[in-house]
Amino acid sequence: MRSVSIIGAGCTKFGEHWEKNFKELIAEAGVKAILDSGLERKDIQAVYGGCMASGRFVGQEHIGALIADQLGLNPIPSTRLEAACASGGVALRNGYIAVASGLYDVVAVGGIEKMTEVSTEDAGFALGGAGDQETELFMGASFPALYALMARAHMSKFGTTEEQLAHVAVKNHSNAVNNPYAQFQNAVTLEQVMKSGYVASPLKLLDCSPISDGAAAVILVSSDYAKKNKLDKKAVEIIASAQASDTLALASRENLYETKAGKIAGKQAYEQANLTPKDIDFAEVHDCFTIAEIMAIEALGFCKQGEGGKFTEQGNTKMDGSIPVNTSGGLKAKGHPVGATGVAQAIEAYQQLNNNAGKRQVKGAETGLTHNIGGSGATAVVHIYRKA
Amino acid sequence: MRSVSIIGAGCTKFGEHWEKNFKELIAEAGVKAILDSGLERKDIQAVYGGCMASGRFVGQEHIGALIADQLGLNPIPSTRLEAACASGGVALRNGYIAVASGLYDVVAVGGIEKMTEVSTEDAGFALGGAGDQETELFMGASFPALYALMARAHMSKFGTTEEQLAHVAVKNHSNAVNNPYAQFQNAVTLEQVMKSGYVASPLKLLDCSPISDGAAAVILVSSDYAKKNKLDKKAVEIIASAQASDTLALASRENLYETKAGKIAGKQAYEQANLTPKDIDFAEVHDCFTIAEIMAIEALGFCKQGEGGKFTEQGNTKMDGSIPVNTSGGLKAKGHPVGATGVAQAIEAYQQLNNNAGKRQVKGAETGLTHNIGGSGATAVVHIYRKA
Repeated sequence: MRSVSIIGAGCTKFGEHWEKNFKELIAEAGVKAILDSGLERKDIQAVYGGCMASGRFVGQEHIGALIADQLGLNPIPSTRLEAACASGGVALRNGYIAVASGLYDVVAVGGIEKMTEVSTEDAGFALGGAGDQETELFMGASFPALYALMARAHMSKFGTTEEQLAHVAVKNHSNAVNNPYAQFQNAVTLEQVMKSGYVASPLKLLDCSPISDGAAAVILVSSDYAKKNKLDKKAVEIIASAQASDTLALASRENLYETKAGKIAGKQAYEQANLTPKDIDFAEVHDCFTIAEIMAIEALGFCKQGEGGKFTEQGNTKMDGSIPVNTSGGLKAKGHPVGATGVAQAIEAYQQLNNNAGKRQVKGAETGLTHNIGGSGATAVVHIYRKA
Repeated sequence: MRSVSIIGAGCTKFGEHWEKNFKELIAEAGVKAILDSGLERKDIQAVYGGCMASGRFVGQEHIGALIADQLGLNPIPSTRLEAACASGGVALRNGYIAVASGLYDVVAVGGIEKMTEVSTEDAGFALGGAGDQETELFMGASFPALYALMARAHMSKFGTTEEQLAHVAVKNHSNAVNNPYAQFQNAVTLEQVMKSGYVASPLKLLDCSPISDGAAAVILVSSDYAKKNKLDKKAVEIIASAQASDTLALASRENLYETKAGKIAGKQAYEQANLTPKDIDFAEVHDCFTIAEIMAIEALGFCKQGEGGKFTEQGNTKMDGSIPVNTSGGLKAKGHPVGATGVAQAIEAYQQLNNNAGKRQVKGAETGLTHNIGGSGATAVVHIYRKA
């Protein structure tokens, strides 16, 4: 397997796009990524696109072909991957495999979701498809409810508090203030989070990521190709790509206070990169709810199991902490167009490692990690990056 | 890239499954494939599953994780691919790439669709997602209507007749009589087809493939692994895998009487295998409508462009013709659970090349081809196989 690098990235603003449709979001992110890479459309040999539930959100499937069409890239192969909220991460991984294998030198990887075309109720039903509809959503358990169960288990087992969860939201909103692509570029106080209404106790409104529209794209090339074509100035190498799965339904898990697939994917990624958690300079993790970030930093070994709440409260995951987490604002404040999220995380890594993240730059960042989760943890994808 | 072989296959009966749900169909096909391969679950390293529109059909996404869960395969990576009616073919291709690259030695590839849980109207809407909803379905053009436009264009350009289309249906039903997994194991006469009611003129009821439930799975291994582990007795090598795309909307195509993506994918597959159409002993092609088979055999070079109708009428694609096409019964008579179709085509190739197709065996078959189309042709996937 060959070395693979990101050499270009493009993203739409995340948020409610009332004047741009599904196709226009794809075009915007895709064109920006191609322009940023220095390549032309004709150089791209294949497309891998992540999207979760376009069938329910916009009545459209066949997203691979749609992306190629929208960007004028046909007749090259263009394929959609779906792994619920990890669709973007899985698309990145399959694009990575296609280049690493030697099959292609240049691929485009994208992620897209347009979630605001349907009612909040219908959006909730579509998102429920990330869990086990038959035993969960159909029985009344929405996604906030599933994560609330995990939060309760974590609080019960480890003594994690609602204030500790709130610290995740405060930190991520504070980071998003400096991200022009974020849905919520406003800070929130601990008091505001604590006083926001319960969605599913113990999770409050400000513990939850929003419903978002958005698209993100990156251009992957073999590192040799980048060097040979002098495209390596901004190249960021993907030094690990790992994916794992867990049971779809929460009820089938060994316990509710950890994400086993996240732990396994993290372990495999560290092995591939020959690194330990201490070597990571920053991480984008899947904080669809604040408890998810706590469980993620534990699964990834940034702190001991059960200590994620305290670790966050102490400020270790802040911009100036030992391991800045979700410098982009995370799903919580940057927004969470589910299919785009995994690719947007890679873009944050690309920008940080190019020392191009503006006011949210992690000083001296050399190695970054992204962690993308599907549903309540049934899919986990972890990538590690370093400046090439 | 390494040589890759199919060493096991499993399929459910295609049809209306009122007593088996989405998960049970996956379990049945998956378990059969694993048992047929001679391997155990623990040997499988990754899963690639094709599914088109489970969100609309059964309210479920996250199909990769669901498959792994259902077969007790987690925590291995399990990924869903979607390319409308070519989802199965694209899953096969991505499983192939994962093994050919050296990343995995053993992967399971599956395809699934459960289409009868919703009304025919809702199924039509879900299937419309394979085209350009915005300019086609939302404007009233259902899939039979889109293929009717292509049929009219073909008839107008080349003089193809409704009788010639009907011959496709008669042949495919006649083949399905000998396929115990087929939805329609009954022969139909030319008169029956010609007298069936118009769905979208010139396409009649018996020109159309049905709404179906079904799942199909194959086990892929590196050919070296098969040999080393003495699993190569039934091994069938995949000697070419090609995919191409075209515009999503018919209105954007250069013309309506050919499938450009099918032509390109076919050409690439022949080049990879270093073969010509004359070297192919049998083919499973995408006959979602009878006109689609005519266009497929032209795109694949089994006859000249425009002569597909006459070629079929003359009996060249029958069991005893020069190039037997859709020995399984095709989508028309075997059934068309869209996500499963591309994998089921590979299973027919596997059975034919193992001289294991019973009364529908093509004598002396050494090389076979499968051709899987998404929507009205915006995705095309072609694979070529030979006895390993």
